[in-house]
Amino acid sequence: MGAREAGRRDRLRATAAANGLDAVLVTDLLNVRYLTGFTGSNGVLLVRAEGSSSGGGDLFGTDGRYTTQAGVQVPDVELLVDRGTELAVARAAVSGGAARLGYESHVVTVDGLRGLERATGEGPGPVELVSIRRAVEQLRAIKDDAEIEALRRACAVADRALAELAAEGALRPGRTELEVGRELDARMLTLGAEAPSFETIVAAGANSAVPHHRPDATVLRDGDFLKLDFGATVDGYHSDMTRTLVLGHAADWQQEVYELVAASQAAGRAALAVGTEVSAVDAASRDVIAAAGHGEHFTHGLGHGVGLEVHEAPSVSAAGTGTLAAGMAVTVEPGVYLPGHGGVRIEDTLIVTDDEPELLTLTSKELLVL
Amino acid sequence: MGAREAGRRDRLRATAAANGLDAVLVTDLLNVRYLTGFTGSNGVLLVRAEGSSSGGGDLFGTDGRYTTQAGVQVPDVELLVDRGTELAVARAAVSGGAARLGYESHVVTVDGLRGLERATGEGPGPVELVSIRRAVEQLRAIKDDAEIEALRRACAVADRALAELAAEGALRPGRTELEVGRELDARMLTLGAEAPSFETIVAAGANSAVPHHRPDATVLRDGDFLKLDFGATVDGYHSDMTRTLVLGHAADWQQEVYELVAASQAAGRAALAVGTEVSAVDAASRDVIAAAGHGEHFTHGLGHGVGLEVHEAPSVSAAGTGTLAAGMAVTVEPGVYLPGHGGVRIEDTLIVTDDEPELLTLTSKELLVL
Repeated sequence: MGAREAGRRDRLRATAAANGLDAVLVTDLLNVRYLTGFTGSNGVLLVRAEGSSSGGGDLFGTDGRYTTQAGVQVPDVELLVDRGTELAVARAAVSGGAARLGYESHVVTVDGLRGLERATGEGPGPVELVSIRRAVEQLRAIKDDAEIEALRRACAVADRALAELAAEGALRPGRTELEVGRELDARMLTLGAEAPSFETIVAAGANSAVPHHRPDATVLRDGDFLKLDFGATVDGYHSDMTRTLVLGHAADWQQEVYELVAASQAAGRAALAVGTEVSAVDAASRDVIAAAGHGEHFTHGLGHGVGLEVHEAPSVSAAGTGTLAAGMAVTVEPGVYLPGHGGVRIEDTLIVTDDEPELLTLTSKELLVL
Repeated sequence: MGAREAGRRDRLRATAAANGLDAVLVTDLLNVRYLTGFTGSNGVLLVRAEGSSSGGGDLFGTDGRYTTQAGVQVPDVELLVDRGTELAVARAAVSGGAARLGYESHVVTVDGLRGLERATGEGPGPVELVSIRRAVEQLRAIKDDAEIEALRRACAVADRALAELAAEGALRPGRTELEVGRELDARMLTLGAEAPSFETIVAAGANSAVPHHRPDATVLRDGDFLKLDFGATVDGYHSDMTRTLVLGHAADWQQEVYELVAASQAAGRAALAVGTEVSAVDAASRDVIAAAGHGEHFTHGLGHGVGLEVHEAPSVSAAGTGTLAAGMAVTVEPGVYLPGHGGVRIEDTLIVTDDEPELLTLTSKELLVL
């Protein structure tokens, strides 16, 4: 602990230097966690570029609630405790001599920037605030071994929770979507999740045609599709998996739609290779569905990165840009949704590697009839 | 459903008109939920001032994932479905003739404002973007009957979860903080919570002296303080309660600290009256602790509003400004923390009324020895 985070700060330091910045003020809480290991609710990090005119090393700011926690989690960065954390760290940057200060313009609000301008304007000389854009999120897209291990454990919790509920007969006609969703969430917590990754989707029958249906009092019935999209958070890392089952017996149209989506999903997984354009991965999966005449029923992108956020870089979609790299954690989740009838989505979380992608969500993708 | 939200929009409309705005763009998702009832993850609301030069009524924007849901939850507002929701709604405002457009400068990021400036700059005439500050949050500070009922149910779930775990012997020496925290979370879900209100705090022994201790592998021991700070979310509304118990038997110093905090908390509750300055409520509670020589060990504000967020207006603290009004939902949560030894916090959620405040968290505040 600590060494990984120090390496990440060094990579951001190099980016800062390459952009002529004296220092970077990181205020996105997940980015701060990534760069320091700090898990509290208030933390700000100043990363100073090497060889810049600004003195000293990095600086971590928080408030009095977290003094002890910061000492344990961020022992290797100088600590500043101040109720007005963000402005105090910005002032420290300026008094240390920073004249070009990077900040996260996709995170800092309009009011927040005004505050930063005022605080840095009190220093000895003029200060330029420069956006670093999503520099930290770009670093986060490539996972290291410890992050991949956390993702494995998060996916394993979700796998096991579903297996246990299925074995106990919890997914049966007569129960409601809400009951199933709450049991799934509770089971993931019992199995060691810190929290569900996001609001669990349980969609029965015609509701399965709604991509992001919110579980309600709908009763599961014999012959229904049952679509479950859920995940667990472990050590801050999120898993994401969708499985679609059938209750009782599968009708021919359900078999057909299921097999189509499964074939599309397999094609998407097969396309996950280092150097492949993310848009080409989307196309590999989407073409299978389009060729079967269901292109208009696949209404969303193929996948997304997962990590400290359940949706993060890269976007695996037709509009996405960039190529896959080893260590990226992404979902592959095509769907076919037939409004009023039902829909199927099959989603895995995988790691891109120099060889085959590593599958983290291990629940079977055979059509499960319960 | 719908009428309450329409009334809220009318109150914002009046604020907009009073500030010479043609329309207000609401982008904070909880503010949008408050004003429309929409619970999805992407929604933007345009509220047009009456008698402004901009044509038409209000406009609700979302993307294709939520078309059906928007039709059900927001049937009384014109719908705009667009992947680039925020900018599309802003463009619609401008093409409708709005020249002075309000926006939430505490929510919109620096990048977001640039996007809005570009989008509104494409219209027929010059457009001025004006901050409305926390206008919607101010409305949200006063709860209506339906909101108070949701808060009652959220508090009842937390009360019952704790009572069940205590009755089952789940809070006993030998268990870890993490185990207790996860069981509390899981039980709240089973009892109907959508989610815990926040990361549940379970702090045993010396950890109870850390105001916001994160549950870890610490084992509960005989004679420990056990501090539990937790809540349930029901229909989007959050409960917040802290209770401090003793395992086995209470030592004299534990009794003393507990009774001091209980007296301080009772004083704080007794000070909750319409028209009272929030800083005076903080002082009423704090003075009890200070008079006993423990002022320096009460290191945080007395309380905060609760509602769609677990922390919202008003801030009940020495630095807080403004007076209490009927319908405000606030916590009263003094604490005394003795570093290295242990601490006590006692917290209730209450509603300010014209008479006595209504207590929503009904778990006993007698020192419970388990």
